[in-house]
Amino acid sequence: MKAGVIGATGYAGAELVRLLSGHPKIDALVLSSVSFEGEKIEDVYPNFQGRITTSLVSAEQVIAEAGVVFAALPNGVGEGYAKACFDRGIPYIDLSADFRFGDDDATYSAWYGKSHQYPQLCEHSVYGLPELNRDRIKELAASGKVIIGNPGCYPTGASLGIFPALAKGLVKNAAVIIVDAVSGVTGGGREPSRSFHFPECADSVSPYKVGSHRHTPEIARNLFSMAAQYNRPAPPLIFTPHLAPMNRGILSTIYIPLAGEWQENGSGATILPPGKELEEKAAKIHGIYGDFYRNEPFVRVLPQGIFAATNRVRQSNYCDISVHLDHSGSTLIICSAIDNMVKGAAGQAVQNMNVIFGYAETSGLEMIPALF
Amino acid sequence: MKAGVIGATGYAGAELVRLLSGHPKIDALVLSSVSFEGEKIEDVYPNFQGRITTSLVSAEQVIAEAGVVFAALPNGVGEGYAKACFDRGIPYIDLSADFRFGDDDATYSAWYGKSHQYPQLCEHSVYGLPELNRDRIKELAASGKVIIGNPGCYPTGASLGIFPALAKGLVKNAAVIIVDAVSGVTGGGREPSRSFHFPECADSVSPYKVGSHRHTPEIARNLFSMAAQYNRPAPPLIFTPHLAPMNRGILSTIYIPLAGEWQENGSGATILPPGKELEEKAAKIHGIYGDFYRNEPFVRVLPQGIFAATNRVRQSNYCDISVHLDHSGSTLIICSAIDNMVKGAAGQAVQNMNVIFGYAETSGLEMIPALF
Amino acid sequence: MKAGVIGATGYAGAELVRLLSGHPKIDALVLSSVSFEGEKIEDVYPNFQGRITTSLVSAEQVIAEAGVVFAALPNGVGEGYAKACFDRGIPYIDLSADFRFGDDDATYSAWYGKSHQYPQLCEHSVYGLPELNRDRIKELAASGKVIIGNPGCYPTGASLGIFPALAKGLVKNAAVIIVDAVSGVTGGGREPSRSFHFPECADSVSPYKVGSHRHTPEIARNLFSMAAQYNRPAPPLIFTPHLAPMNRGILSTIYIPLAGEWQENGSGATILPPGKELEEKAAKIHGIYGDFYRNEPFVRVLPQGIFAATNRVRQSNYCDISVHLDHSGSTLIICSAIDNMVKGAAGQAVQNMNVIFGYAETSGLEMIPALF
Amino acid sequence: MKAGVIGATGYAGAELVRLLSGHPKIDALVLSSVSFEGEKIEDVYPNFQGRITTSLVSAEQVIAEAGVVFAALPNGVGEGYAKACFDRGIPYIDLSADFRFGDDDATYSAWYGKSHQYPQLCEHSVYGLPELNRDRIKELAASGKVIIGNPGCYPTGASLGIFPALAKGLVKNAAVIIVDAVSGVTGGGREPSRSFHFPECADSVSPYKVGSHRHTPEIARNLFSMAAQYNRPAPPLIFTPHLAPMNRGILSTIYIPLAGEWQENGSGATILPPGKELEEKAAKIHGIYGDFYRNEPFVRVLPQGIFAATNRVRQSNYCDISVHLDHSGSTLIICSAIDNMVKGAAGQAVQNMNVIFGYAETSGLEMIPALF
Repeated sequence: MKAGVIGATGYAGAELVRLLSGHPKIDALVLSSVSFEGEKIEDVYPNFQGRITTSLVSAEQVIAEAGVVFAALPNGVGEGYAKACFDRGIPYIDLSADFRFGDDDATYSAWYGKSHQYPQLCEHSVYGLPELNRDRIKELAASGKVIIGNPGCYPTGASLGIFPALAKGLVKNAAVIIVDAVSGVTGGGREPSRSFHFPECADSVSPYKVGSHRHTPEIARNLFSMAAQYNRPAPPLIFTPHLAPMNRGILSTIYIPLAGEWQENGSGATILPPGKELEEKAAKIHGIYGDFYRNEPFVRVLPQGIFAATNRVRQSNYCDISVHLDHSGSTLIICSAIDNMVKGAAGQAVQNMNVIFGYAETSGLEMIPALF
Repeated sequence: MKAGVIGATGYAGAELVRLLSGHPKIDALVLSSVSFEGEKIEDVYPNFQGRITTSLVSAEQVIAEAGVVFAALPNGVGEGYAKACFDRGIPYIDLSADFRFGDDDATYSAWYGKSHQYPQLCEHSVYGLPELNRDRIKELAASGKVIIGNPGCYPTGASLGIFPALAKGLVKNAAVIIVDAVSGVTGGGREPSRSFHFPECADSVSPYKVGSHRHTPEIARNLFSMAAQYNRPAPPLIFTPHLAPMNRGILSTIYIPLAGEWQENGSGATILPPGKELEEKAAKIHGIYGDFYRNEPFVRVLPQGIFAATNRVRQSNYCDISVHLDHSGSTLIICSAIDNMVKGAAGQAVQNMNVIFGYAETSGLEMIPALF
Repeated sequence: MKAGVIGATGYAGAELVRLLSGHPKIDALVLSSVSFEGEKIEDVYPNFQGRITTSLVSAEQVIAEAGVVFAALPNGVGEGYAKACFDRGIPYIDLSADFRFGDDDATYSAWYGKSHQYPQLCEHSVYGLPELNRDRIKELAASGKVIIGNPGCYPTGASLGIFPALAKGLVKNAAVIIVDAVSGVTGGGREPSRSFHFPECADSVSPYKVGSHRHTPEIARNLFSMAAQYNRPAPPLIFTPHLAPMNRGILSTIYIPLAGEWQENGSGATILPPGKELEEKAAKIHGIYGDFYRNEPFVRVLPQGIFAATNRVRQSNYCDISVHLDHSGSTLIICSAIDNMVKGAAGQAVQNMNVIFGYAETSGLEMIPALF
Repeated sequence: MKAGVIGATGYAGAELVRLLSGHPKIDALVLSSVSFEGEKIEDVYPNFQGRITTSLVSAEQVIAEAGVVFAALPNGVGEGYAKACFDRGIPYIDLSADFRFGDDDATYSAWYGKSHQYPQLCEHSVYGLPELNRDRIKELAASGKVIIGNPGCYPTGASLGIFPALAKGLVKNAAVIIVDAVSGVTGGGREPSRSFHFPECADSVSPYKVGSHRHTPEIARNLFSMAAQYNRPAPPLIFTPHLAPMNRGILSTIYIPLAGEWQENGSGATILPPGKELEEKAAKIHGIYGDFYRNEPFVRVLPQGIFAATNRVRQSNYCDISVHLDHSGSTLIICSAIDNMVKGAAGQAVQNMNVIFGYAETSGLEMIPALF
């Protein structure tokens, strides 16, 4: 099959090109770029020298030639391409936010500043987190008309960290879940700017868009969706993103108040180290997490004692999860790590393609995380 | 005055040496090191070549010669030196955890695995966070017998971020305050180990000691102490440390549920972007924070719109604080940034010396944060 | 085939394990480690969780079970294993320096402090740089007795950068070739030490072992060997290594005085920018380099105008080469970039295995360099 | 005195502001910026919050108010300001390349693409490397008319490393000196671009402008100038710059062929480790270097066995030099380290001001290099 990528020279697009070029079911690529049309992608990304020698064409040509189309474009500019693919019956996997909110145009437009041009497409779209919506993806694929809203990077790591607790009723009713996340700089994309200028972000950690990041409603929507599948109430949510001086990776530390009373090991000078009973409680929850993801090929619930870390999923499609408790045993602390460019973007897009076409879900995504 | 440093060749000790050598009231240094006794410190730290040429001597000689003694030793090994200084009437500023818990030997021994050898010293000790205990430090100094328990790095940034909310009654009753913090690698000290081996921590972020870090009871104790000064209840606390690939700095993101009801902008797909009224609420709280620290020379409440970041306090004694709200306006999110080696260790120790001796509190600490 | 790795938990060993586990001709691994015998390698390297679940055994067991043995051990400790494999007729690929000097025990022992225990093995060994010795590797393999001295990291990048100039007679007679190289920190291995402690090497570049690094005679020997193949004199050599704050990669900048007179654009205030004729001269030499490596699968002579950079070969087995001239056109400046853990160690070892067994030389080494 | 900075919001300008604000002889600052005129510099650089609260004005106002003017502008745009200061009799210290070439307009225009607008100013200008031109700077200052061409970053580290060998006749006649240098990313300035975008330069080392960097003629001119002072011939020069993933610092590794014959420890497989006689030779040259810089306050010739490293001069005005030999003893290898923003730019500018006004040369520049 020939795979097409619209917007192949942004970071997510280029990573997609790299992954697709090693995919056993893809035998050709057709790639577009507005900025570099006519050039060879190996000259834009010298990493590809001698390996991916395709010339960059127009989006229209991509759509005309490809059997599956990935779009790695800014938000709000690709709907026309989605429509064209839809009309031609070609699966369209969109890495922007345009199809992440289903038919909830109100939320989408409130956060992204514009309404959908073709709202009818949304009905045939599905949020492409296979761990949440695998069946729906297959269903749409079977119908011959499928548009994937490929998840955002933060929402992927955050949602996967919360799902088991939510599904299995561990979450305290009406209590707020807090997602505190740290991302590598590739999350900001290929375009140079002050925030991602080396001397401004090297050797420093900083928060940004506190209380106002667009991934907040996306995570909330995922929690709602998973909660609904298990007849649970959806919890309130707080999400705070940070930037750290590394290229790839997102580490999410998630605070989930546990159902049951607050344990008194709490305030003032009297806090004591956690004891044996906490270990047992943690082991039990660890077991619940392990069971929940037993059949998921890309979620690894780490053995107790090993902490999720971004360098342990580097260059892979894994989401690693480690399970902890606060010292009092009242709050579940989940740490999840993904590579923001793989499971957080291009890898997940390939995973979605695999689901759509009925390929092995790990096809082309067998990368073992790089050591250093 | 001659200043003494016991344990001058660890990271905190060496930073102290560097700061003291530029202090206008200090005209000589006497430095000890077990590992390098007899060597010159400029040969241990080539940065000091030609500038700090002192030879390293024994701890006993430091105590015999110095007018003020700093101890930058591992926990639990310096009490004898404290006793000797105390008996000689010399101020003793201890950068270990040994004197951070006052007479609460129970908490200290539960977390640090040993009891105090000279419990009577604890009565003459004070936790050296000037923003909390300035008067008590002066009082003890006036008595001629003073031992400073110099604060831990995480507790400094976390406590300063929470104090105004706590003092001014902003905190929701019985709600848990969460401190999610990220540290640079110098926090781990000078001793090589796998965790701090370059290829293991470069290009990665990871949590550690989740639910079990020793700074948890220290922060809790500070909150209790500040709350007590204002007749407030002490809140329960959760603290999670992380490691990031940078040398210096701690960024603490602190979640403080606000008194009043949870605002409904919260769960499911219905989260909306924050609006005007949130800005106003944030401005009000920002004003409270600004007022609280108006006279503090080392706490900067940043203008709204600027985020605390570790590279903005680099190499300085500042604690920068930025004030935010979550999207619903229900939770106050405070970000605080310090240089872990300065305000988080050596700088704060010098600040304590300044308070003890009645020097200008900023004496020797006028460093403007380094740009990059 | 079952592949064995002795010393599987060092950095080179672990990278080898990762590469071999994706090799299409290898269906099982048998791995040894002195430090972790009995443990699972996925617990030593959590990156491998769920993917490489082998338990670590003894070196003896590796030799007993494997059809090919890789040894990733410190210098001077593996000769006994080489002997055992040799006697059993199993190819032995040694990543240490022990078999890099053929029968020149004098040079080996002068630099490595010990003589060979089994000098007769050296006669059946070959320096495993396929671009230099492919035929000899095949020849020995055909004989059924082959020991590979897998090249050092610096010698690989340096030698490949110099070979074409040397072979094609570009080098000025008796002039010194200078190799100035910068390595990432994984080159120092897995063992923590002060030099590779994060705060000591982050945000800094420094030279080390100037004039005395053990890779000097190894590079010289390669130059001699290539020169001899083309009846050229071997040039004198200077080699200087540096450490830079990155995980992987070696960038070698190589100064090769060109045959012919020094061009007068040289000293004092009169240096002028390079002109057109230099471009033509550079293009010609670029062509010679391109021709020389036309059939090499892992050497990429970059188009003019693109500079070799370590991040463009990251995680791949490529050696990228860019061709330049100094402003006067008198000295050829070659920049070569490799990933020190792949082409500089584990990848090259796999390449050697491919040559020995007659597999496609790129088998298991198809990785396209990772973008960031 | 009131100091003025034209172009105060670029990196060099801002570092200058930071240094000047701590200078004991400067009691006020007047700062200009085209991009941020009317704003406060503390809002452009939040590091300065509460410390440097000056509003940014026009260049004209700087010139009208200041007793000394620093210009941190792009090349070729500040001559008019130089003229205005010159006419008013105010010392003008120019951090651009405009006054680095004296009256050699031919070289300047060949490399920088434009001629001088006011060539007569060049006669009153001096290249502000105090270690080379201290007397001339004083002489011009005494005349009441002085323009300083503040040296480039690379030329500072390179020239200081070569001067003693050149002056003392160690350099082999007509042999080429090679300067291979690595710089931190702040050298590229404040303006975001692809080359300095974090994901493009993190975790990588790469060369740039090989054979064509503008600092080549500047270094050559310095060598010529020093050689002339000692009646020596000026050597040919090669200069290659690289970029490394660090914020500050330049490490120059300099290859200087020694007068005398090439020693035979050189080619082929016969290279031997350096022996005792090399140590003695190195010690002798080390002594010559130490003597040469005995009275220089900012050049530290490191004890033998300590290697120059950028993190050992970090945030200071030092140039550290370590002295080595290649294995054969034929080539002197000098490593020099500077902080590119201090001795390589802003610190040296302050040093020049100190010389001009007869202040202690170390005034305001007493910073001990930051540990990590």
